[in-house]
Amino acid sequence: MPQISVAVLGATGSVGQRFISLLDNHPWFKVVALAASDRSVGQPYEQACRWVLNDPMPEYAREMVVVPATPECIDAKIVFSALHNEIAKDLEPQFAQAGFAVCSNASSYRRAEDVPLLLPEVNADHIQLVKLQREQRGWSGCILTNPNCTSTGLTIALKALDDAFGVQKVFAVSLQALSGAGYPGISSLDIMDNVIPNVANGGEEEKVEWEPRKMLGKLNDNKIDLADIRFSAHTNRVAVIDGHTVCASVEFARPADPETAEAVLRDFCGPASASELPSSPRPVIEVRSEADRPQPRLDRLTGKGMTTVVGRLRRDPILDLKFVVLSHNTIRGAAGGSIYNAELLVNENLL
Amino acid sequence: MPQISVAVLGATGSVGQRFISLLDNHPWFKVVALAASDRSVGQPYEQACRWVLNDPMPEYAREMVVVPATPECIDAKIVFSALHNEIAKDLEPQFAQAGFAVCSNASSYRRAEDVPLLLPEVNADHIQLVKLQREQRGWSGCILTNPNCTSTGLTIALKALDDAFGVQKVFAVSLQALSGAGYPGISSLDIMDNVIPNVANGGEEEKVEWEPRKMLGKLNDNKIDLADIRFSAHTNRVAVIDGHTVCASVEFARPADPETAEAVLRDFCGPASASELPSSPRPVIEVRSEADRPQPRLDRLTGKGMTTVVGRLRRDPILDLKFVVLSHNTIRGAAGGSIYNAELLVNENLL
Amino acid sequence: MPQISVAVLGATGSVGQRFISLLDNHPWFKVVALAASDRSVGQPYEQACRWVLNDPMPEYAREMVVVPATPECIDAKIVFSALHNEIAKDLEPQFAQAGFAVCSNASSYRRAEDVPLLLPEVNADHIQLVKLQREQRGWSGCILTNPNCTSTGLTIALKALDDAFGVQKVFAVSLQALSGAGYPGISSLDIMDNVIPNVANGGEEEKVEWEPRKMLGKLNDNKIDLADIRFSAHTNRVAVIDGHTVCASVEFARPADPETAEAVLRDFCGPASASELPSSPRPVIEVRSEADRPQPRLDRLTGKGMTTVVGRLRRDPILDLKFVVLSHNTIRGAAGGSIYNAELLVNENLL
Amino acid sequence: MPQISVAVLGATGSVGQRFISLLDNHPWFKVVALAASDRSVGQPYEQACRWVLNDPMPEYAREMVVVPATPECIDAKIVFSALHNEIAKDLEPQFAQAGFAVCSNASSYRRAEDVPLLLPEVNADHIQLVKLQREQRGWSGCILTNPNCTSTGLTIALKALDDAFGVQKVFAVSLQALSGAGYPGISSLDIMDNVIPNVANGGEEEKVEWEPRKMLGKLNDNKIDLADIRFSAHTNRVAVIDGHTVCASVEFARPADPETAEAVLRDFCGPASASELPSSPRPVIEVRSEADRPQPRLDRLTGKGMTTVVGRLRRDPILDLKFVVLSHNTIRGAAGGSIYNAELLVNENLL
Repeated sequence: MPQISVAVLGATGSVGQRFISLLDNHPWFKVVALAASDRSVGQPYEQACRWVLNDPMPEYAREMVVVPATPECIDAKIVFSALHNEIAKDLEPQFAQAGFAVCSNASSYRRAEDVPLLLPEVNADHIQLVKLQREQRGWSGCILTNPNCTSTGLTIALKALDDAFGVQKVFAVSLQALSGAGYPGISSLDIMDNVIPNVANGGEEEKVEWEPRKMLGKLNDNKIDLADIRFSAHTNRVAVIDGHTVCASVEFARPADPETAEAVLRDFCGPASASELPSSPRPVIEVRSEADRPQPRLDRLTGKGMTTVVGRLRRDPILDLKFVVLSHNTIRGAAGGSIYNAELLVNENLL
Repeated sequence: MPQISVAVLGATGSVGQRFISLLDNHPWFKVVALAASDRSVGQPYEQACRWVLNDPMPEYAREMVVVPATPECIDAKIVFSALHNEIAKDLEPQFAQAGFAVCSNASSYRRAEDVPLLLPEVNADHIQLVKLQREQRGWSGCILTNPNCTSTGLTIALKALDDAFGVQKVFAVSLQALSGAGYPGISSLDIMDNVIPNVANGGEEEKVEWEPRKMLGKLNDNKIDLADIRFSAHTNRVAVIDGHTVCASVEFARPADPETAEAVLRDFCGPASASELPSSPRPVIEVRSEADRPQPRLDRLTGKGMTTVVGRLRRDPILDLKFVVLSHNTIRGAAGGSIYNAELLVNENLL
Repeated sequence: MPQISVAVLGATGSVGQRFISLLDNHPWFKVVALAASDRSVGQPYEQACRWVLNDPMPEYAREMVVVPATPECIDAKIVFSALHNEIAKDLEPQFAQAGFAVCSNASSYRRAEDVPLLLPEVNADHIQLVKLQREQRGWSGCILTNPNCTSTGLTIALKALDDAFGVQKVFAVSLQALSGAGYPGISSLDIMDNVIPNVANGGEEEKVEWEPRKMLGKLNDNKIDLADIRFSAHTNRVAVIDGHTVCASVEFARPADPETAEAVLRDFCGPASASELPSSPRPVIEVRSEADRPQPRLDRLTGKGMTTVVGRLRRDPILDLKFVVLSHNTIRGAAGGSIYNAELLVNENLL
Repeated sequence: MPQISVAVLGATGSVGQRFISLLDNHPWFKVVALAASDRSVGQPYEQACRWVLNDPMPEYAREMVVVPATPECIDAKIVFSALHNEIAKDLEPQFAQAGFAVCSNASSYRRAEDVPLLLPEVNADHIQLVKLQREQRGWSGCILTNPNCTSTGLTIALKALDDAFGVQKVFAVSLQALSGAGYPGISSLDIMDNVIPNVANGGEEEKVEWEPRKMLGKLNDNKIDLADIRFSAHTNRVAVIDGHTVCASVEFARPADPETAEAVLRDFCGPASASELPSSPRPVIEVRSEADRPQPRLDRLTGKGMTTVVGRLRRDPILDLKFVVLSHNTIRGAAGGSIYNAELLVNENLL
């Protein structure tokens, strides 16, 4: 496979760092540019960036000189966007217009009707919307988005259960990691010996209540019918570095018991087109049988951080079943997800 | 008011320590004995105990010599029990038989039909069961219990709402503090940068799904009819020292909106007999209007740790309303609760 | 004692909050104004401030409307300054000129020759410099400073030892709390599961190597001769909310052994003029004999946070003795220290 | 290279887990047995062990059935010992007698005159003591030890400096990670929002003051002359999962300045025999130039956790130079160190 040139936009932030880390030795992609805000432009990445990941900064990135985040300054096929939403809103279409495939972690275009909101394990077929997008907008490039990190693991687990039993109602209470707020993000005085019972002071819960409906929706005639599922989300921030935990209770259209559900989750492998890519999670879902798992510190790196980990499957006294879902918020739920989307795009010959 | 002599059973554990701290300068009660296991007996409390509270050990306790936890070794009217459940099961009846009023934080007798499970703000009238208990068991003393720490704040908030709208279904997801597991309790390697999505590897959720039904039940003819409310509880342990947070969603029999519910919570003051005692929470419930409160570190000491703090009242897309409840687990939810129960017993002339 | 009107400058920051908390029900001082930056002016304090202390905001402060930090807007005898150093540098002389006694936690004037750098237990007599200050600068008010929070506990312990044995060399390695960096201060991603082996990226170590020399110096003819002590300081930031720990090794001019040193520390009571004030630490120094104390969470509130706690006194293989010092950095080491200084000023009839 | 069969003694503890993790896909060694206490014997490792590492348990270990830690039950050339000291004291000689090379992390034989205390970068030549050991004790196997985790990084940095300038005195204050205390180890209530100013309530400081002297000593005529260096150690436990930080001040026999010392550290590569082994650190020492590094979370995995990271090199006002050393306590400072020692043994044809 020939290498495809890629760039990272917003390269100095915490999601940008994760892109850089995950793209180290990627079999298909070669990072040719790191773009960030004016403050960083012209500096070697090593100086421009306050690295916050546990794993050391990859060698390849240290000496790369940061460039401006504009299409003219970047010569690549794909750009991975870790931009803030307001900036992404303006910049991403410029890149798509200029012929780049934009694989974005920003929320700006997740709700656009012709923009795929993608988890390849769940709705790889939605990537076909790219054709409509190009046609309607006159772009040679395109924009692909991945969902909010809290929606990610939850939606993957729900997809398996939806196929088997028909999901109707979902309660979701999250315990979210600090890295989701970026850097510097949450003050230590706000989270040590503490819980913040809201994320981003609003906005997060609406995303969790809407994004899964798009991803679990059906694509018909170039249009996605939102899944008819009712969500109630409550989001919390806790003193965890990486890994979002979600406590979920679900009501189904058809009878479901914990044993069958566990088998359904274990056996779930997603569409064939999504299962042999470099970033494909192996397994897609891991089901833990211990009474106290999944746990973020112990389970977030399952399948190199791409696997969704489920545990504590049991009957719910009000709806039907309840369980816990864990997903690495900056790998599967952000940078790793965007890269996986890009791989699908390449594999579908849509680049 | 003359001083009433009291003792603490299980004085060296973390709840025992909280009893000792809260009884410092209590207007009615005077600690005359500290009892603990054989290992500690005969030692000055200061040496026997590894103190884990932020506030220094009260002066009065330092030199007290630890005695065995048996009725013969203690000369007091009331004993506060911070015993482990298995030990409490045997010992508490011995104390009640011997004429002591046992105010217990253990779970052993919470489900006994003639034992009050008390939150004075909620069900002060249930204390009348003590008469039946004495009659049936031939005790001159008695056993009073307070609920599990996670049920405590939730039940107080639900009581206010139940009076106003009739509670029918309750989803509760907790984020519980470390002090609830005692000392040494949770290993630091298990909770740093982590969440444990279960408490005590089971048992906690059943308590949260049952105990509020007894407390919200009606006392008729010396018998409590359990409240007809369906609970679904999911309990988590998080890296917080003190203060349990509960995310609750509730369905009501009658229409409820956030504004009215907020007023109902703010105005709730509980029965008159419970509102002028030394440990009465002032206010009973505090409603915070900020988007990110209550938080354990900032709000757990509201009303000296006896107040229940509620926030984020809003509509729930599946049931009717949702909100967050915070309660100090070792003050209102344990030692402070037992002391408050003892005060009610005294005030009702049932000692 | 009639009440003296006081104001807090920089009232919304973390040290400002501590001033407000400690001044609640102060027997001599009554807070009449809270001043902060333009962003906060005109708002009730409750709204202007993101409160970060464990103890709830005092009632008296909630409704006070924040005023600008200028002499014209404040009618008080004393102002407590929690201003940033650059702002303090300009503003504090304006207040002193206008007749206010400025009790400052800022570092701007600590090195000025006519400004007392005060720990009343250590160098209460240095307050006489105020007379020279007024004379030289033509001020009716004055500026008093308290030292850097890391120097505070160390200097108090050293004073006792210096009187007894003559201190010559001091190694000091600190483990400092997060609240010392203000709010938002240290990012959670920088300190969770981590240590930062430097404080404020420089400057802190120089303070710890110089400030004790001024405080331990002698006042002769209106001039302070710096103590002839050599310091080597290394400062670290650790995941502790409040309470600075310092590991110290000391060389003396005269023979010293751990037992005598322990007695010297226990018996130290400072000058008489400093020992009966409302904020006087009781005791001045507490010596812990356990092998693993002092610890910040357990010992920082000793003597309401004003006591210096020392432990692990033992021989040092290179110098003479070593030990651990703990001091509450925002009480004794900041706001409490400034208030104590103000009390001394009042008591010496220098207001 | 043919594979050499190895076993892990004390396989379920936290250091045992680290051995298992590091031996996954080792180029020379193949794990053939996992041994632990009676409680675990007969169970699949996955069930017997409460895994506490961030990285998931390696596949190879999951199904291995735990065997007793006795020579008869194990068929391997090398055993890695993560046993507790008291147990190691009895068991390790039995294994050595029975022909196993015991590479031990326990402290029981570190001080024995015929047992090498090894850091290959520092004193690879000391491994020759094994011949004397075999001769004197009549063993066909042998015991090799690695030092205490806090001594490890410090000694490696000192070795480089000793070669260049002659080390004479060393002050060392540590900030040690939780994993050093094993599992369950430190209670969360003891370390959250806290520092413990002692490690293991004693013993640790003596190790840090003695072990480097043996490793920096010269081997003459089958005898090690302890290096003539005076150490003063103070050890602290902090809320860090992995990675020990040491603040060191050093006095030299010959003039030293920070720039030369930095070059000396950077260029240090240890003896040739130790530098091309599978676990050889690459680089041996990394010098960070930032004002706030090394930090445990960011730097502990440098060189796969085998590199010693040094920063903040500067003049010391009392001795000559000071700096900060970071070393991964369960990789370089424990399991990784033992494996590195075993590799040296193989390479020297001493197995």
